[in-house]
Amino acid sequence: MIKKPFQDYYPDVLAHCYGCGKLNEYGHQIKSYWDGEESVCHFVPGPYHIAIPGYVYGGLLASLIDCHGTGTAAAAAYRDEDRLMDTDPAFRFLTASLHVDYLKPTPLGMELEIRGKVKELKGRKVIIEEWILAKGVITVRGEVVAVQVPDEMVAELLKGVKE
Amino acid sequence: MIKKPFQDYYPDVLAHCYGCGKLNEYGHQIKSYWDGEESVCHFVPGPYHIAIPGYVYGGLLASLIDCHGTGTAAAAAYRDEDRLMDTDPAFRFLTASLHVDYLKPTPLGMELEIRGKVKELKGRKVIIEEWILAKGVITVRGEVVAVQVPDEMVAELLKGVKE
Repeated sequence: MIKKPFQDYYPDVLAHCYGCGKLNEYGHQIKSYWDGEESVCHFVPGPYHIAIPGYVYGGLLASLIDCHGTGTAAAAAYRDEDRLMDTDPAFRFLTASLHVDYLKPTPLGMELEIRGKVKELKGRKVIIEEWILAKGVITVRGEVVAVQVPDEMVAELLKGVKE
Repeated sequence: MIKKPFQDYYPDVLAHCYGCGKLNEYGHQIKSYWDGEESVCHFVPGPYHIAIPGYVYGGLLASLIDCHGTGTAAAAAYRDEDRLMDTDPAFRFLTASLHVDYLKPTPLGMELEIRGKVKELKGRKVIIEEWILAKGVITVRGEVVAVQVPDEMVAELLKGVKE
């Protein structure tokens, strides 16, 4: 089990995401880890992350599925190449599509557990299936189709940093 | 065309949502209106709503699709009954499922337009198809399956307010 979260391996220029970038001071800064064949992330919604009183707002849950999914996709791509996440080239994934099923209202005021599993890994595309638990009960299921950030886009961004 | 946004008709107890509640001071407070057969909402992401430099974070786009969808669902339910949105009983919808396709990166630093259209309205369920435009270009397509908040949940919440 890797102790450093997936997101902390993102190159700085790719670490500004509101959901998962360690450099976004306003964002969620989620942290994901391997737990055997599954990935796991814990997050405590703020009291303002409300839908209707007592329950978590669906947009936040979608964001958690989204960013935990792209993080898991990156980690899976390294693992698939039998490489550590601090080796080059750096992998970073964007979401091509996101699906979220809200099975039941997710209670506010407690830590949530977001879990993910690789469903498919083919070329530059990784599909991650996910679920969110509140006190051990699954309240949300989701799926993320993640695609690797195009090399030219990464090159452009890295170039911007160096200039 | 109704001048007052859909969300401003939500009863106060159901107006705390981070995405669309007029009473959530930390939230997005989106405002949706009819524009003929389509619904429309305009939103300017903050500079911190970033994915990778220059582009909007997918979780925010999912939230916009989500809340504009439930707002449109509520408005459509009133319209279907030929009722104004300030008449009782109040309709409020929650998201049962959300699907978002990120067709291309959505540029940051400009107003986005979120548009929606009723795909299906049957009993307590409304399906809304949506799309997001940046400078007239569609960057995101989505679909929300919205279901009416159960009456007993609304009654419980309203009871809490009265006590």
